[in-house]
Amino acid sequence: MRVGELAKRSGVPVPTIKYYLREGLLPAGVLTSPNQAHYDEEHLRRLRLVRALVDVGGLSIAAVREVLAAVDTRDDSLHNKLGAVQEAISQPGSVELDPLAVRDVQLFFARHGETECADVAESNVTRMLAAALSAARSVGHDHFEELLDPYLEGMRLIARADLEYIARRGSSDAVIEAMVVGTLIGDAVIKAVRRLAHVQVSREVIGDGFDG
Amino acid sequence: MRVGELAKRSGVPVPTIKYYLREGLLPAGVLTSPNQAHYDEEHLRRLRLVRALVDVGGLSIAAVREVLAAVDTRDDSLHNKLGAVQEAISQPGSVELDPLAVRDVQLFFARHGETECADVAESNVTRMLAAALSAARSVGHDHFEELLDPYLEGMRLIARADLEYIARRGSSDAVIEAMVVGTLIGDAVIKAVRRLAHVQVSREVIGDGFDG
Repeated sequence: MRVGELAKRSGVPVPTIKYYLREGLLPAGVLTSPNQAHYDEEHLRRLRLVRALVDVGGLSIAAVREVLAAVDTRDDSLHNKLGAVQEAISQPGSVELDPLAVRDVQLFFARHGETECADVAESNVTRMLAAALSAARSVGHDHFEELLDPYLEGMRLIARADLEYIARRGSSDAVIEAMVVGTLIGDAVIKAVRRLAHVQVSREVIGDGFDG
Repeated sequence: MRVGELAKRSGVPVPTIKYYLREGLLPAGVLTSPNQAHYDEEHLRRLRLVRALVDVGGLSIAAVREVLAAVDTRDDSLHNKLGAVQEAISQPGSVELDPLAVRDVQLFFARHGETECADVAESNVTRMLAAALSAARSVGHDHFEELLDPYLEGMRLIARADLEYIARRGSSDAVIEAMVVGTLIGDAVIKAVRRLAHVQVSREVIGDGFDG
């Protein structure tokens, strides 16, 4: 297909596609005449992945380049690729970490046999968790870590649905694109659904009539 | 206690306490001399709630005033108060809503017997969900709503743990403070725990060896 059709099918405007081509985020098309290039389904999938990383993930061009390098590494399992992409799209804020929160996180990871990624210096995901527990401690909630085990149980249920959702895609690029979208937009969906679950469960547990 | 001790026990600096007093977010203390006031445990609990709303919830002073009015409504159930506070701390971004996403949300609410809060014009939580599904549609993910049911299942599990966590508090102010902190900091914790769950479940389902 020509660049105009690529733009139409992907929803990405032509000037943006040309920018991605210049930045090397999208491989060049096959020239069919001196100023006309031909693109295929592979380009379309890659373009969708780049757009998800930029638009949904808010990644910089440099970060997108790193993610694509991880995606394109041969001899690596899909599981490892997904892990690398997940780290790239999980940027914890610059909260100061409370050593007690860091210890809570390490105990939690140890409890679940995940000692490999328990180091806050090594993993964005681990640092993100330690940052959230530090924030809880800073407002006097020292036992928030009690919630980690039930949270993991609920999230494992959700992760199975997520994995099914992304596994339905054909190519590696499409799987990873679905993971980026699913992870980041999924966070927002989960936030909203959690509030509905609170309303439902509070009605069941506390009841409408209980006077506070 | 005097204002200095109130500051020490709450972790809120004296000038901030005086500002909250002027703004009417904290009831005046009992004057023990012309320029000395006495505060009690009630003040401490209210101060912790105000701080959670401002620091963790990022609410404006006007929004805090509204939440406190809801909390202080007599003849209302704790369940209804929790609902009102939850609406106040759930501000959806100003994303344009896709009518198809709105329809998906309405079907989802109907499926779960929650027709009362299914109107995006009436509920921030509903609008938040419709905004997230609109974002998914804008990047070509038209079937993201398939995930809503498993998400709700996982979130109900988590909501039970949340409700247990907040129900342990004694007073209505403390319950609501725990709900604000638990909801907002909990969102960040859940985001991080979800990533751990993805790693675990992807290892179990895809396996380390599967080549992508």
